[in-house]
Amino acid sequence: MAQEIEQQNGAASFAALKPQVVVPAGKADEAVQFYKAAFGAEELKRVNHAKRKADQETPLILCAELKIGSASLLVCDQTDDSSPVAGKEGGSGIVFRLETENVEGALAKAVKAGASQEGEITEEEAQEGSCCGGVLGKVKDPFGVAWIIASAAKVAAVEA
Amino acid sequence: MAQEIEQQNGAASFAALKPQVVVPAGKADEAVQFYKAAFGAEELKRVNHAKRKADQETPLILCAELKIGSASLLVCDQTDDSSPVAGKEGGSGIVFRLETENVEGALAKAVKAGASQEGEITEEEAQEGSCCGGVLGKVKDPFGVAWIIASAAKVAAVEA
Repeated sequence: MAQEIEQQNGAASFAALKPQVVVPAGKADEAVQFYKAAFGAEELKRVNHAKRKADQETPLILCAELKIGSASLLVCDQTDDSSPVAGKEGGSGIVFRLETENVEGALAKAVKAGASQEGEITEEEAQEGSCCGGVLGKVKDPFGVAWIIASAAKVAAVEA
Repeated sequence: MAQEIEQQNGAASFAALKPQVVVPAGKADEAVQFYKAAFGAEELKRVNHAKRKADQETPLILCAELKIGSASLLVCDQTDDSSPVAGKEGGSGIVFRLETENVEGALAKAVKAGASQEGEITEEEAQEGSCCGGVLGKVKDPFGVAWIIASAAKVAAVEA
């Protein structure tokens, strides 16, 4: 009942906010090693970019999930898809990933409040061991901060 | 005993990782309102910048702590002190704030792993209702990401 009312209002509750560091392509593994050494980060999972698996020696990292204390930090290689969050002048970019069961509602609410939607809502590639299957949309807020609103990771669904 | 060994190794455990959005001076209140409207953020506390309290109608926000889902997000007005995390071209900057009981050890470990320390370790101003009293250091990691390493918020200590 409460959930029903929430959805009518276009509201969404967020299961997680995960900051995502997007580093220049090919640097993500180095970044993961650095965060382990510098902050004692623990690597929970890593998903490589499918397109590079076959033809590249070092695959791009679509998403590595680290744990620092009790918090999640995602580290990703920059790809064509990550352009809205790309850092300037070859640097790193940061985007906040919000996970929710109601991606459309959350996006609509953010846009109504003044965020600009970037591109269409897409279905993330669900890959072996993926952290990233599900629906995903991107917005930029009025202060220039990039947000990804995505359905919560469903690792189990990938195995089907 | 375990803690003793940890400190000998220069290791530090982190109580929290709080992403901090540093917006152009004077915009933080607007940003807080936006995050409430867009993401249902809840404002837990707000500390204004002391120097502006007397002579400005709208005080700068040193730090507003928001809760989105179970995660913390800090929103701050840019001040002279926040230069290392300032956004380019008048935009917003993002810094990750790590809270720990062993600021010196954590900084030393990060620098040993390849981060550059920015400035000296400072004592944050402890103010009425402060979220920010305590020791604080800043580093930039090899990927251009800014980190604040700070002692965990001690609101109670401020009242003394």
